[in-house]
Amino acid sequence: MEVAYRPDEIAQLVNARRALGGSTATIRDIASLRQAQAGDLSFLGNQKYKAEVAATAASVVLVPLDYVGEPKPDQLFLFVENPSVALAGFCARLERLLWPRPAPGIHPSAAVAPGAQVSAEATVGPLCVVEEGAVIGAGSILHASVFVGRRARIGEYCWLQPGVVVATECIVGNRVRLQPGVIIGGDGFGYEFVQGRHEKVPQIGQVLIGDDVEIGANSTVDRARFSRTVVGEGTKIDNLVQIGHNVVIGRHCILCSQVGVSGSTTLEDYVVLAGQVGVGGHITLGQGSKAGGQAGITADVAPGAYLNGTPALPFMLERRLQILHQKLPELFKRVEKLESRPE
Amino acid sequence: MEVAYRPDEIAQLVNARRALGGSTATIRDIASLRQAQAGDLSFLGNQKYKAEVAATAASVVLVPLDYVGEPKPDQLFLFVENPSVALAGFCARLERLLWPRPAPGIHPSAAVAPGAQVSAEATVGPLCVVEEGAVIGAGSILHASVFVGRRARIGEYCWLQPGVVVATECIVGNRVRLQPGVIIGGDGFGYEFVQGRHEKVPQIGQVLIGDDVEIGANSTVDRARFSRTVVGEGTKIDNLVQIGHNVVIGRHCILCSQVGVSGSTTLEDYVVLAGQVGVGGHITLGQGSKAGGQAGITADVAPGAYLNGTPALPFMLERRLQILHQKLPELFKRVEKLESRPE
Amino acid sequence: MEVAYRPDEIAQLVNARRALGGSTATIRDIASLRQAQAGDLSFLGNQKYKAEVAATAASVVLVPLDYVGEPKPDQLFLFVENPSVALAGFCARLERLLWPRPAPGIHPSAAVAPGAQVSAEATVGPLCVVEEGAVIGAGSILHASVFVGRRARIGEYCWLQPGVVVATECIVGNRVRLQPGVIIGGDGFGYEFVQGRHEKVPQIGQVLIGDDVEIGANSTVDRARFSRTVVGEGTKIDNLVQIGHNVVIGRHCILCSQVGVSGSTTLEDYVVLAGQVGVGGHITLGQGSKAGGQAGITADVAPGAYLNGTPALPFMLERRLQILHQKLPELFKRVEKLESRPE
Repeated sequence: MEVAYRPDEIAQLVNARRALGGSTATIRDIASLRQAQAGDLSFLGNQKYKAEVAATAASVVLVPLDYVGEPKPDQLFLFVENPSVALAGFCARLERLLWPRPAPGIHPSAAVAPGAQVSAEATVGPLCVVEEGAVIGAGSILHASVFVGRRARIGEYCWLQPGVVVATECIVGNRVRLQPGVIIGGDGFGYEFVQGRHEKVPQIGQVLIGDDVEIGANSTVDRARFSRTVVGEGTKIDNLVQIGHNVVIGRHCILCSQVGVSGSTTLEDYVVLAGQVGVGGHITLGQGSKAGGQAGITADVAPGAYLNGTPALPFMLERRLQILHQKLPELFKRVEKLESRPE
Repeated sequence: MEVAYRPDEIAQLVNARRALGGSTATIRDIASLRQAQAGDLSFLGNQKYKAEVAATAASVVLVPLDYVGEPKPDQLFLFVENPSVALAGFCARLERLLWPRPAPGIHPSAAVAPGAQVSAEATVGPLCVVEEGAVIGAGSILHASVFVGRRARIGEYCWLQPGVVVATECIVGNRVRLQPGVIIGGDGFGYEFVQGRHEKVPQIGQVLIGDDVEIGANSTVDRARFSRTVVGEGTKIDNLVQIGHNVVIGRHCILCSQVGVSGSTTLEDYVVLAGQVGVGGHITLGQGSKAGGQAGITADVAPGAYLNGTPALPFMLERRLQILHQKLPELFKRVEKLESRPE
Repeated sequence: MEVAYRPDEIAQLVNARRALGGSTATIRDIASLRQAQAGDLSFLGNQKYKAEVAATAASVVLVPLDYVGEPKPDQLFLFVENPSVALAGFCARLERLLWPRPAPGIHPSAAVAPGAQVSAEATVGPLCVVEEGAVIGAGSILHASVFVGRRARIGEYCWLQPGVVVATECIVGNRVRLQPGVIIGGDGFGYEFVQGRHEKVPQIGQVLIGDDVEIGANSTVDRARFSRTVVGEGTKIDNLVQIGHNVVIGRHCILCSQVGVSGSTTLEDYVVLAGQVGVGGHITLGQGSKAGGQAGITADVAPGAYLNGTPALPFMLERRLQILHQKLPELFKRVEKLESRPE
């Protein structure tokens, strides 16, 4: 988006404790230290990039309070407690400009059933469908082309982006953000094999999405076979993630893109799964456990454990095995040499 | 969903052969043996959970005819031929309450082309698009915001959930269920590399979905380069699955979530692929073959084979190799020890 | 689709240099050499299938100029410079019949904001949403139920299929094809962990899609944290692919289905990633580098390198290690035998 700030405006907006140097540039963009040009705001968010501050062309740089160094000519250093947090606050301000809050009300092109309860303070955008008995809470936004099914309930201050589907009887908490194309409440995948055919096991449960959850574009959360599939408060889910039926995800978990969690598995609080991790069904991942990218988990995981690989093993063991695996050519040679010794 | 049944009503609905004990509770939910509370219906669907029957707090428990054991006070055992099947029948009844059949007819907000043929017994819900020459069979439901393209054909008693796309000239059989966001007939992925650029190979074939197929949320089935991509009768596909162009899938296969099948590959009948399996192009997976989660298959698979790992190997061999892989640290030590022997 | 051509019409349409034999059949379909039947057009696109020409039942076969062989009775060989390219040209003709160009104009059911700029030569189909300040260029088609957000810009001669979302301020070049369900500009996945909770890092950047890009069904490209996520000119992306925030993809890359690229990673020009490849964040894949299916890449890749496996290794090394891995049972036996020697 197009922005234009004077350096002193930024100093105020990020609540800078101290300033060093100065710049006459108008700030029009934000960039990493390495990519920044004149007119950009940058920041030292990670000590590993410390050396890049001296080389950056950014006009304004947010640095931590203990940073030691001199700005270039026409460059301003702003000292803040936590540059990442300070930048996030500044960006949150820009975000409100990027996504101005729509006025409450129901767009005339939306199809809202007579028996739906839409708060007078909610926004139902163009071409949305809200079915019989659905409830939309105050401050919530159905951006456009969103579907909310029969008796589904959306809490307060949620934001459902274009193309989101929340199917029949599913429940979404407060301040939930669903990115475009998210599907809540598709049927779970369950069949009985009867006389050579897969007979559908009806999936009549719900999905329950806790407060402050965010789910990424085109991810899917299946409804339970019975009772409910749960995504706990504060959990963040990336794009194209699959959550199977009757899965219970705890609070404040992180599931990166393309993760798949099979049916009836439990993730306790603060679990972190990197991209493309696959988790089998009917197991439990203990509190705070983690798995590296593409790991394949098929058994219970202890709290705090850090796994990697397929099948998933403790991270350091998996790493050690990888190193030895790469030494196999050498090992075969060593064994050959031993064999060539006279018996 | 909210339900309320008396235990004797349930006995009748599941066609119980015999009852033992009794309960005055009103049944309001269904739960697994371990998670059930008073007021819940539970069931012994798998002999491995037999020991949990004695401990369950469920008010009503479906057990197999040969189950031996006594109910607790205020607990009813109902003996049925197959508890899973009996429960499924009961749930099918609930399912009809969860998804009441909409009345036939075309919602006024739908955009149906003059030349489309929509059966008088079909339902076209709000904000659907049905293009010129498309055919929608009797009893089929386009729930809401469904797109059916030019000359596409939907058979009888299909159910297309919100956001489904069936593109131009694709053919869907009878009793097919497409979960929200399914895309049938996106272009296959084919290019010719000409003078440093990828020139598109037109994808002018169709997709043919057989009778009784179900496809999960946000899965994609590409149209053929020419002729057709086929999903055979009775096959069940989970969420976020990718089926490439000119793939031919047989009857009664099971493809779990996030599976990808590359172009021009054939799956014979009764193939089962676990989650995140990847299948290369131009190969054949023989009848009844199986692959474990995350397996990577790049060569033909014999009928009945069971593969695992990347590259995929016979299951037991792969398992054995995994065990030896985990013994590498020990093996290196053993070789070192051998080397330390005097020559 | 249904077609009917006389063999001599096809000879003209593919610009045949020479013909051999002849057929009275009406050509109604296209098929591979092996699957073709009478009435089909086939082609020798790859020398590896040369032997199949003699056995094919196709009525018309496109062969390269240097092909040596005789057609069967009622079979016509057409000699062309490049059979694949010739067929593609023929198919492009059929493609225009499959997808007739809609008339320009805005469908009355579309919700187009007063301040949107839609070219008089663009088509906005039924039930599309075009928000304030969005720009739709000449010749571009929003097929149906497409969403284009505030101040987003779609170039000329683009084709956005049903259900596509291009969110606020994202920029799409010219001649871009977005298959159904593509999401451009969902939020990047970024959080700061503050006092036991994941606080959202605002994602206020854009997505920039270059000219002649094609993106497959239900793929997602996230908007940048700040500045922009880029997909370079001529790059082709398959279905269900995830592109994280601030990723920069070069020109003419190929990303097959279900690939995931994590945030802030750079792909230089002509990178090729096979299906289900996972790429970690903050790394660079050099020009022309390649990775095999399901590879997991977590470090920089040299230009032209060809990697495979997880963790990704040079292709030939990975292959060699796989072979040795499969010889582990033998190696353990050899070591055991050595140990049984008298010391």
